[in-house]
Amino acid sequence: MDNELPETKRSESLSDGAFAIIITLLVLEIHRPVAAPGTLGRELVAEWSSYVAYVVAFLYVGIIWLNHHYMFERLGRIDLTFNWINLGIIATASLIPFPTGVLAGAFRDGNLADQKAAIVLYAVIAALMSVAWIPAFSHLDRHPELVKPHLPPGVFAAQVLRPGIGILLYGIAALLGWFVHPLLAVGIFICVVGYYAWTSQGITRSKS
Amino acid sequence: MDNELPETKRSESLSDGAFAIIITLLVLEIHRPVAAPGTLGRELVAEWSSYVAYVVAFLYVGIIWLNHHYMFERLGRIDLTFNWINLGIIATASLIPFPTGVLAGAFRDGNLADQKAAIVLYAVIAALMSVAWIPAFSHLDRHPELVKPHLPPGVFAAQVLRPGIGILLYGIAALLGWFVHPLLAVGIFICVVGYYAWTSQGITRSKS
Amino acid sequence: MDNELPETKRSESLSDGAFAIIITLLVLEIHRPVAAPGTLGRELVAEWSSYVAYVVAFLYVGIIWLNHHYMFERLGRIDLTFNWINLGIIATASLIPFPTGVLAGAFRDGNLADQKAAIVLYAVIAALMSVAWIPAFSHLDRHPELVKPHLPPGVFAAQVLRPGIGILLYGIAALLGWFVHPLLAVGIFICVVGYYAWTSQGITRSKS
Amino acid sequence: MDNELPETKRSESLSDGAFAIIITLLVLEIHRPVAAPGTLGRELVAEWSSYVAYVVAFLYVGIIWLNHHYMFERLGRIDLTFNWINLGIIATASLIPFPTGVLAGAFRDGNLADQKAAIVLYAVIAALMSVAWIPAFSHLDRHPELVKPHLPPGVFAAQVLRPGIGILLYGIAALLGWFVHPLLAVGIFICVVGYYAWTSQGITRSKS
Repeated sequence: MDNELPETKRSESLSDGAFAIIITLLVLEIHRPVAAPGTLGRELVAEWSSYVAYVVAFLYVGIIWLNHHYMFERLGRIDLTFNWINLGIIATASLIPFPTGVLAGAFRDGNLADQKAAIVLYAVIAALMSVAWIPAFSHLDRHPELVKPHLPPGVFAAQVLRPGIGILLYGIAALLGWFVHPLLAVGIFICVVGYYAWTSQGITRSKS
Repeated sequence: MDNELPETKRSESLSDGAFAIIITLLVLEIHRPVAAPGTLGRELVAEWSSYVAYVVAFLYVGIIWLNHHYMFERLGRIDLTFNWINLGIIATASLIPFPTGVLAGAFRDGNLADQKAAIVLYAVIAALMSVAWIPAFSHLDRHPELVKPHLPPGVFAAQVLRPGIGILLYGIAALLGWFVHPLLAVGIFICVVGYYAWTSQGITRSKS
Repeated sequence: MDNELPETKRSESLSDGAFAIIITLLVLEIHRPVAAPGTLGRELVAEWSSYVAYVVAFLYVGIIWLNHHYMFERLGRIDLTFNWINLGIIATASLIPFPTGVLAGAFRDGNLADQKAAIVLYAVIAALMSVAWIPAFSHLDRHPELVKPHLPPGVFAAQVLRPGIGILLYGIAALLGWFVHPLLAVGIFICVVGYYAWTSQGITRSKS
Repeated sequence: MDNELPETKRSESLSDGAFAIIITLLVLEIHRPVAAPGTLGRELVAEWSSYVAYVVAFLYVGIIWLNHHYMFERLGRIDLTFNWINLGIIATASLIPFPTGVLAGAFRDGNLADQKAAIVLYAVIAALMSVAWIPAFSHLDRHPELVKPHLPPGVFAAQVLRPGIGILLYGIAALLGWFVHPLLAVGIFICVVGYYAWTSQGITRSKS
């Protein structure tokens, strides 16, 4: 048993490192204006979409970390399959600066067609981020020996619904953004971040 | 209780990772001169504002880490609200390379109007960094169950004053920098870093 | 004994930090298109080689981390020589974004001669990454005092074969890529990643 | 006492994170050639000074980590002063990609005057890196309560000599590089890295 405990620790350590980097690299996405002398103030204001993108992306990564944290809190040990699943979660979460930056850039420099393309890119990658959590919850449900003994059985089975709802919303956002207006999709994107934040809270409530 | 202890550890681990990255990314802000052959020496000297910015920003992040470290030293466990507050501290601290780089760039390439804009940007973001600490201290004051048992009650209530003074000084710096001269504001910015360093010392003194 | 245990921990901590950064920096290799208004969608699709490169490189670093993780799981303590060997593993693994980015760039912007050059660069650096593991396995075989006591002797001697096969395959890939066609080499590169993934599984199987 | 132990852990954790990032960011200093079609192979060979710089810089950071690791191995707890000293060690070590990149760039694109300027920059910053270790050793010598109890007194007093010799050699390198030839200085820079590697070994020898 003493032999298995370190496994959780190193996977947590890799994950914390990765989340810390993702969260910190977001600041590099804030476009530093290359302004002609005397225009820096105006240029800084024109970067508003970068600032909104930073706040939303930071909230998103922060919520993913909280969900990850409360999931690992319930684990006693990890097998090889779960390490792979965990790498998948990190791999998709690492991508977030890319579609967020493209989206912010499309609202700064692009036209409506560019904004639509950026919306679809964001929806696809954000849906992939949700997809990556489904095997985590179902694997933990099938392998109760990985979960801490005092937890009720089936605690992870119910969680599969959450990424499912996320994927559905991203699909709707892509359709509305493409056929109606990109800003509608941005609104849904922000709602999904809020939904994940809210259900992260829900998990801790069911704990006590 | 054994169940709660890891919570502090992973939040510390995320924070240490983030601070390590913020502190290390600062070196990327040192503008590498693209010099015509034979002019590298002169160009390196002309970058003096980058070097000053590196030293001040490094000191600032280092002091934030020290304050963070001594705050967590006093905690036995963390709840979800405090994890959110901690993410807010990391989010605002992560921003520091952006206004610091803009400020150094304004003194290298910009005119007086650019320097004033950069001063206001720095003051706003540095004030946000101070604002982020207020809920931390007041939450810990209202939730003594998170604090290690041997500490005197009210140890965190008094600390709210520190970010308050910081925010006030940043407001004064923005006004003086905009209406009088940017270098006055830079002087105050450096004083606030010194003030936070001094009160970090004060915390450990009150400990023994 | 209590004195020796931390040694493993800090080397693991440095390694986990480094792997977390390598894995997260890969996203910076995804070329962000600078598109003329209205062409963002087309440009995003044209970046397909960046996306394939991200997936393969992420899998590669993930597998190296898994192998590293299961190797350290078997260690009780570390000597100075092994710390140097570990630095060599990190040094070569850190390089992976460089040849991967050059390879993806050659398939996006270059001609056949560029692709051949990029293939040779990738093969040389990937072979170096394999070479770095040979001293690890042979040092642990010669120093059983570093290995946890309950493991069978000779557990590490057999592992030397794995990087050996990797180096051989990279040599073949370089020759085929240079004299026949670059895509043949890319196929072999992906096979080696699969081989290392498969034998990572093999290690855990021999454990139970 | 249980109260003091975590202090070492978090300072180690910040340091390991910072060293992991410094060591991994070095790969970003490897200049990715922007080659005209068909010239990638030649351009990759022309980058030889980047590759040498990567190897030397990686060795340097690796050795600093080893020295840091073996110093912390001997510590039982840390006071505020030592945390500041540790931040100074990280601050100067974080700088290394800057002078290393400038030096590699000067040998790729610059003339003799540029190479001399880059040599002086490297010598100044590398000397600062050595200077940062002097207060560490002298503080630990004056505060034996921070050192693990079983260690002989005066174990740190003798170590001050090592950064002293390093600073002396960097001074000589700057003078020879400026007045005689830059390559002489590069030779001495590599020798200092070797000297620090050698004395890192010496520390562990005196341990047993």
